[in-house]
Amino acid sequence: MSRVWNFSAGPAALPESVLRRAAEEMLDWQGKGLSVMEMSHRSPEYTDIFEKTRSDFRKLLNVPETHDVLFMQGGAVGMNAIVPMNLMNGFEQAAFVNTGAWSKKTAKEFSKYGLSRVVLDNANSVADSAVSCYVPECAPLLDRVNGQQMAYLHYCDNETISGVEFNGQVEAIASQLDCPVVADMSSNILSKTLEVSKYGVIYGGAQKNVGPAGVTIVIVDKALLNRALPICPSAFTFGTVAENGSMYNTPPTYSIYIAGLVFEWLIEQGGVQWAQSQAQEKASLLYGTIDSSTLYNCPVRTEDRSRMNVPFTLADESLNARFLSRAAEQGLVQLKGHKSVGGMRASIYNAMPLEGVKALVEFMCEFEKSET
Amino acid sequence: MSRVWNFSAGPAALPESVLRRAAEEMLDWQGKGLSVMEMSHRSPEYTDIFEKTRSDFRKLLNVPETHDVLFMQGGAVGMNAIVPMNLMNGFEQAAFVNTGAWSKKTAKEFSKYGLSRVVLDNANSVADSAVSCYVPECAPLLDRVNGQQMAYLHYCDNETISGVEFNGQVEAIASQLDCPVVADMSSNILSKTLEVSKYGVIYGGAQKNVGPAGVTIVIVDKALLNRALPICPSAFTFGTVAENGSMYNTPPTYSIYIAGLVFEWLIEQGGVQWAQSQAQEKASLLYGTIDSSTLYNCPVRTEDRSRMNVPFTLADESLNARFLSRAAEQGLVQLKGHKSVGGMRASIYNAMPLEGVKALVEFMCEFEKSET
Repeated sequence: MSRVWNFSAGPAALPESVLRRAAEEMLDWQGKGLSVMEMSHRSPEYTDIFEKTRSDFRKLLNVPETHDVLFMQGGAVGMNAIVPMNLMNGFEQAAFVNTGAWSKKTAKEFSKYGLSRVVLDNANSVADSAVSCYVPECAPLLDRVNGQQMAYLHYCDNETISGVEFNGQVEAIASQLDCPVVADMSSNILSKTLEVSKYGVIYGGAQKNVGPAGVTIVIVDKALLNRALPICPSAFTFGTVAENGSMYNTPPTYSIYIAGLVFEWLIEQGGVQWAQSQAQEKASLLYGTIDSSTLYNCPVRTEDRSRMNVPFTLADESLNARFLSRAAEQGLVQLKGHKSVGGMRASIYNAMPLEGVKALVEFMCEFEKSET
Repeated sequence: MSRVWNFSAGPAALPESVLRRAAEEMLDWQGKGLSVMEMSHRSPEYTDIFEKTRSDFRKLLNVPETHDVLFMQGGAVGMNAIVPMNLMNGFEQAAFVNTGAWSKKTAKEFSKYGLSRVVLDNANSVADSAVSCYVPECAPLLDRVNGQQMAYLHYCDNETISGVEFNGQVEAIASQLDCPVVADMSSNILSKTLEVSKYGVIYGGAQKNVGPAGVTIVIVDKALLNRALPICPSAFTFGTVAENGSMYNTPPTYSIYIAGLVFEWLIEQGGVQWAQSQAQEKASLLYGTIDSSTLYNCPVRTEDRSRMNVPFTLADESLNARFLSRAAEQGLVQLKGHKSVGGMRASIYNAMPLEGVKALVEFMCEFEKSET
């Protein structure tokens, strides 16, 4: 067997040691004679797995006692409705920062539940080739949000498609805002340290940095557990899920177990601090290669470039197909860019080792030499 | 390694050959160098897996072209809200049959979206020891439902907790009803043949007869795809999910892959016809043992007994703990009854071989001999 370097944006590569352990334990978890997939979610064995998983996650992000950690379903797209259904009781509007496809989708879905106010926007920065993708200046948020009786301010901390990432700008002003901050961190959670207490809600679909698709991790300020609309389904009501320890309905037990193995692996590596420095090193190597080349180009403003998703184009688009097929021959796969952006995208989440990025960079240099 | 006989009500036992194949393919699916868990849901490899899974499911239940098959999230508890959010536009009430804990929960959740009319009831039949659990006579449904402008009639085809199962009573009158029938088949789907065209919606959480927890299978009449309430989340809107081939949001990819392996296994065994005759044989053996004993008793009326979940009590409750511990010594696990019913419950879904039920029956006879 030869494993490839998998640059998929999600579902994405997982640590090989996690997969190896999952394979070993598949038929017989720790001598119990059954798979984790076959365990009742109420069994003592599964309860242990679940509680360790949740507690490891709390440790990794240093989640304070003021906040609950929930394991839910529906992914970030589901959360676009689940968040307003949980937070809009007594409110009529919420504020949105638009930095790309995902935050735009969030604001659009919100309009089913209230008036969506886009208070910061870099819309169309991708389409307009003269302007790089970027994170807008966040200071004006204070004026535009405070005093407006917003239910919350939502932003997407890392735009997976366009490769635009915040670097603490909202966290830095959160305590001056008069409403809670809700952050979609689907594609960069666990890749950097956070001051969780600054957020009302942080959520993420698992399939990038956490584990298999099908589980959503939600960190929620306990003070926000009683703001659900009457039409919010019980299974998706933060308060109900919290009261029942994420077991109000049967959780996606196996996906949570895999997430738990990923958390154990991450703790062994050195936790989120390790992930953060590793992410920096990988991103620098890849962006450095792009910037020093004449063939490759990244449209994102330097200081706002995602450490997780690296989009780049080839100066000559007719080379795209050859780039992809030659990369695949070398075991570098899933590099095709999102259809709305074109070109290439290399997603380099926690589970992508530096070695994989080195292999990609080496290939990119060789390809450039041979084609130009 | 020694595998146990796992009688869990769900998440439940899976076919050993499925787990074995999942373990083998965990690090390298069919020579592609990556796990199914790591595949983009848009990749050609995963598209093949997904389409085969859906098509095998359609074949197994002979789903007609009039109906879509959707892979969703949130389980049956989620569906208690998702169904009304999808079907209540233009309606004020729906009809419910109450045969136990699950159908009761469905009617309760419904009240967030409309007026819930319980049109048939065997409520409290468990609590009242003089009356066995049973399926009420269904003919009166015609009078109670027709002409009332019901959005739909909901029933739970198999009550997992009390072990009460329908035997085609609703299907038989469905075409005489003036509203669609919605059936929760979480715990007996794929265990018997169905005339799918008779139903508006059939749904089931996967974790009993289908695969791992975290995927919900929904069969929906295409004629019902345009009845969603405006507040229905896009990710949970049947029409949106159908239009996007269950890929509007990232589906629980790995759970669907395992479900696909289960479908392949079931087809190899002989399909749903095989499952039906196997279920009958296993249930007869177990109920026969219970009925011919003086120690064991099943509270469910004979003709309404579930072929999937077999609840039974011991005449002397003080023996319960010893029964469970001695069973566990013999590798017979997860036999403790639901807390609301007490006693024991043996869940014998498709993946439980006849051999496992024979082992249980043998133990039960030995235990009775040694204790009475």
